[in-house]
Amino acid sequence: MKSFRKEIWLNIPTRRAFVNLTPQVEAALEESGIREGLLLVNAMHISASVFINDDESGLHHDFEVFLERLAPHEPIRQYRHNDTGEDNADAHIKRQIMGRDVVVAVSGGKLDFGPWEQIFYGEFDGRRKKRVLVKIIGE
Amino acid sequence: MKSFRKEIWLNIPTRRAFVNLTPQVEAALEESGIREGLLLVNAMHISASVFINDDESGLHHDFEVFLERLAPHEPIRQYRHNDTGEDNADAHIKRQIMGRDVVVAVSGGKLDFGPWEQIFYGEFDGRRKKRVLVKIIGE
Amino acid sequence: MKSFRKEIWLNIPTRRAFVNLTPQVEAALEESGIREGLLLVNAMHISASVFINDDESGLHHDFEVFLERLAPHEPIRQYRHNDTGEDNADAHIKRQIMGRDVVVAVSGGKLDFGPWEQIFYGEFDGRRKKRVLVKIIGE
Repeated sequence: MKSFRKEIWLNIPTRRAFVNLTPQVEAALEESGIREGLLLVNAMHISASVFINDDESGLHHDFEVFLERLAPHEPIRQYRHNDTGEDNADAHIKRQIMGRDVVVAVSGGKLDFGPWEQIFYGEFDGRRKKRVLVKIIGE
Repeated sequence: MKSFRKEIWLNIPTRRAFVNLTPQVEAALEESGIREGLLLVNAMHISASVFINDDESGLHHDFEVFLERLAPHEPIRQYRHNDTGEDNADAHIKRQIMGRDVVVAVSGGKLDFGPWEQIFYGEFDGRRKKRVLVKIIGE
Repeated sequence: MKSFRKEIWLNIPTRRAFVNLTPQVEAALEESGIREGLLLVNAMHISASVFINDDESGLHHDFEVFLERLAPHEPIRQYRHNDTGEDNADAHIKRQIMGRDVVVAVSGGKLDFGPWEQIFYGEFDGRRKKRVLVKIIGE
């Protein structure tokens, strides 16, 4: 069994954004040399998500509206987490809705994807350096 | 290490439905011959889910009501994704809430499940052929 | 390839609670002797979650308020699942929002975590014995 580990660093200039990580994950898979196995991609921060959906800006706008409706950033004072001096309770909740990690099959050395699957980083409390972990096991 | 891959094809006649995939996943596991490992089941389409919950029709009705309340199909024009000519923005959001994939332990050649765990396909934009991927690694 | 399996039993005295499982998962990983691989932690019950987020009591309060707003326990009669004699339809929905399982990279014999990642059990229908499964594969 082989294993491979790679970190992807991001520094999103806005509080919230969606970034397509698929090219970087594909590069990590190629670098690993693994042909058959499982690939994990996860946010290493608890106010960010990794998820798989469509690379379409209208949909990303819809996600943003949906998440702000369910867990609005303001008023800050509505969340007890923010009593600690933070202002990112909404980001922790948004990350929970969108998910922390995805597991992807590796078949024939490729991400074993349907036609529209793309891997996204969802930032909900940006403007600082954060990491995503890619871990691959197989052979 | 062994690996095994199988696609399950579905063609749901309605826009939305929940389908129990457990027998087909168990058949794939048996076919694989893998006794210890991890099994991934994921929707290969971004307007569908794979999740684990109860095989009880009342609960499926409750999920349907819950999801329609959070991300209603209509009015179509409320979603920017639908400006592309699609009408399935709600399906992308519903899939995100219910999840894309599940990872199941394989122990002694069986799905290592609690008493009520069953694997479901959640269709949110049906009436066409779609696929679920089963990938198993182990030995 | 090595594999390792361990159950963690819980008996939460209240209907709902969040419990930090990280020390028990770390102990299972150490017991396994696995240095590189993937670790799955999942609820074996369909009215409970396993998820990764912050160990901060204010945030857990915010999660509780958020989940009760989205899928309130009462009135019991609003859910068709509860027509079966159950009163836990809300717990099945809450578990779906928070997730069933997490997959964690194992690197150098440790959980490959960012600075604040902690593994939680989310109980939504407690006051009885329930189980969490830890399955690790690697070498």
